[in-house]
Amino acid sequence: MRAALALAKRGLGNVWPNPAVGCVIVSDGRVVGRGWTQPGGRPHAETESLAMAGDAAKGGTAYVTLEPCSHHGKTPPCAEALMAAGIRRVVVAIEDPDPRVAGRGIALLRAAGLSVVTGVMAAEATELNAGFLSKITRGRPLVTVKLATSLDGRIATHSGESRWITGEAARQAGHLLRAESDAIMVGSGTVLADDPELTCRLPGLAERSPVRIVVDGRLRLPLTSKLVSSANDVATWVLTLEGADETRREVYEDAGVDVVELPGNDHGIDMVEALGVLAESGITRVLVEGGAHLTATLLRHDLVDRLVWFRAARVMGGDGLPAAVAFGVDHLSQMPGFECVDVRPIGVDIVENYRKI
Amino acid sequence: MRAALALAKRGLGNVWPNPAVGCVIVSDGRVVGRGWTQPGGRPHAETESLAMAGDAAKGGTAYVTLEPCSHHGKTPPCAEALMAAGIRRVVVAIEDPDPRVAGRGIALLRAAGLSVVTGVMAAEATELNAGFLSKITRGRPLVTVKLATSLDGRIATHSGESRWITGEAARQAGHLLRAESDAIMVGSGTVLADDPELTCRLPGLAERSPVRIVVDGRLRLPLTSKLVSSANDVATWVLTLEGADETRREVYEDAGVDVVELPGNDHGIDMVEALGVLAESGITRVLVEGGAHLTATLLRHDLVDRLVWFRAARVMGGDGLPAAVAFGVDHLSQMPGFECVDVRPIGVDIVENYRKI
Repeated sequence: MRAALALAKRGLGNVWPNPAVGCVIVSDGRVVGRGWTQPGGRPHAETESLAMAGDAAKGGTAYVTLEPCSHHGKTPPCAEALMAAGIRRVVVAIEDPDPRVAGRGIALLRAAGLSVVTGVMAAEATELNAGFLSKITRGRPLVTVKLATSLDGRIATHSGESRWITGEAARQAGHLLRAESDAIMVGSGTVLADDPELTCRLPGLAERSPVRIVVDGRLRLPLTSKLVSSANDVATWVLTLEGADETRREVYEDAGVDVVELPGNDHGIDMVEALGVLAESGITRVLVEGGAHLTATLLRHDLVDRLVWFRAARVMGGDGLPAAVAFGVDHLSQMPGFECVDVRPIGVDIVENYRKI
Repeated sequence: MRAALALAKRGLGNVWPNPAVGCVIVSDGRVVGRGWTQPGGRPHAETESLAMAGDAAKGGTAYVTLEPCSHHGKTPPCAEALMAAGIRRVVVAIEDPDPRVAGRGIALLRAAGLSVVTGVMAAEATELNAGFLSKITRGRPLVTVKLATSLDGRIATHSGESRWITGEAARQAGHLLRAESDAIMVGSGTVLADDPELTCRLPGLAERSPVRIVVDGRLRLPLTSKLVSSANDVATWVLTLEGADETRREVYEDAGVDVVELPGNDHGIDMVEALGVLAESGITRVLVEGGAHLTATLLRHDLVDRLVWFRAARVMGGDGLPAAVAFGVDHLSQMPGFECVDVRPIGVDIVENYRKI
């Protein structure tokens, strides 16, 4: 199962709207098939590993990180494929909460006389599938906020200098995070300040650039920005408030940008609504890369599931720009709380991983 | 030597103006004596371990974390004591840079025919003696700044609530840091805001409370504060600007507070001068516990040697009080840089240890 989970991980960020699944087939004590969900979500991991195993699958055991599907979608159900290949035993990490599956895959296998074991490395599989599970059960993607700050939590000097607070190793890790995300989200202020590309610039991973999403209630995104000028090559969505200027909207769309209009609240775009729309579009994992306003809005509405905090061992002082602007914490008890999952040195910096409590 | 260093560590914070030294005497393959510098700095570690060893010291080896002293001070020189006890071999971690010693202890031993080895676990001994070495070679104590902040580097809410950002385990570790320091230093703003006791409140270590130092250019420290009212029990020094009001000064002194007048500069008390005076008074290790102004002043003048950063896994937002107020960083390249020595979970928080690069 550990091997199947490692295979599954290869699909993260690349298989939405489907889950990233891994499958290992063992027969006569030998691994005869290995597969993972392919780019775009198909073929499924089971199909891949069965194809690799061929006749050797007969009588074997399949280790699958998520319950095999039971419904006829764009591909035939994987449960049937496992049965047809002569698999005798299926070990499943966790059930698929998708209402089209939800135990029916396992029931189908058992009804056909296969032995099925579930719950093997369930915690690891739940973490791996956190985005997909969030989409299905909460109707919104998993939201990870990535930050790069000084020790005192500053993202830029008062003059706006932010490149680069952290070192090369931290920045590379940041690009890897992008590759494992379905979408990267930033506020329009960040685009105005930094004109970022928001692509995955790592050797061999350039094709893994996720959807780029700009939260831009007032359509401030410059048409000359790198994001707009490359929108025909890399998917770029702008979330804005309902009633956007029609002409401006069309100009963006002509440049290849998808404009999504959303209801607002006291603090701008209603981010609960926004994340719901993203989930409906199939997005399971969003990486938020600032700025301080967007981060604060997400924290205010309790929408941050994970924090990945890259921290340089330097101090900036109180006139530096904050990681998150004020978002209504008057008392210590009101601070959104996280749990430290991991903290380690990365190059000259450290990286801290937190999970919402 | 590792054992001798562990013994030496017991003296930290408790032996100023002397160095914290450890000594282990081995004879016939057996440990026959163990000693460390006693409270107040005397007796020395060698005297203690020789007393424990008695006649068994004869022909043995002494492992000492710092070169044995060679000068007649308030105690006879330890080099002579080792010779008189019949020690045949002395293993020394590092030389004592004190101009009254500076190699003369080792020379004395060698001249008397003892075998002397130096440089054993020198890096560890240098770190252990960082405060004493700083006092001797730089004329100022080692300055450690301790902070307790949110992830985004805030020490209190905008309403001033700061108790407690971090949890019980972090606070206990903070008290242990106090016990290993000769003095604790805070700014007057911190006293006005929190009215702290600045004592070491750990079982068995209550007697280890260091000198309490308030940086208070305008003599704002309230006479009703816990610091002033307990000044007859725990040494309390106030550093203020030259030309302080004589009457107010006398009131403090009547309460048992030592008032030290110092020259000023554009940012208040000249902290280089202040630290020089502390070193002259024998202080080797200062723990700075805020607030944001004192921390910023020390960072501005490059006077921070160590940072111990306790960090709660919570986010406060941009209206929280900063760890350090602005201190002139206009460009990223101007940020004072540190090296991460250690980072680990402590209770529900994490603690990061940094050393000045």
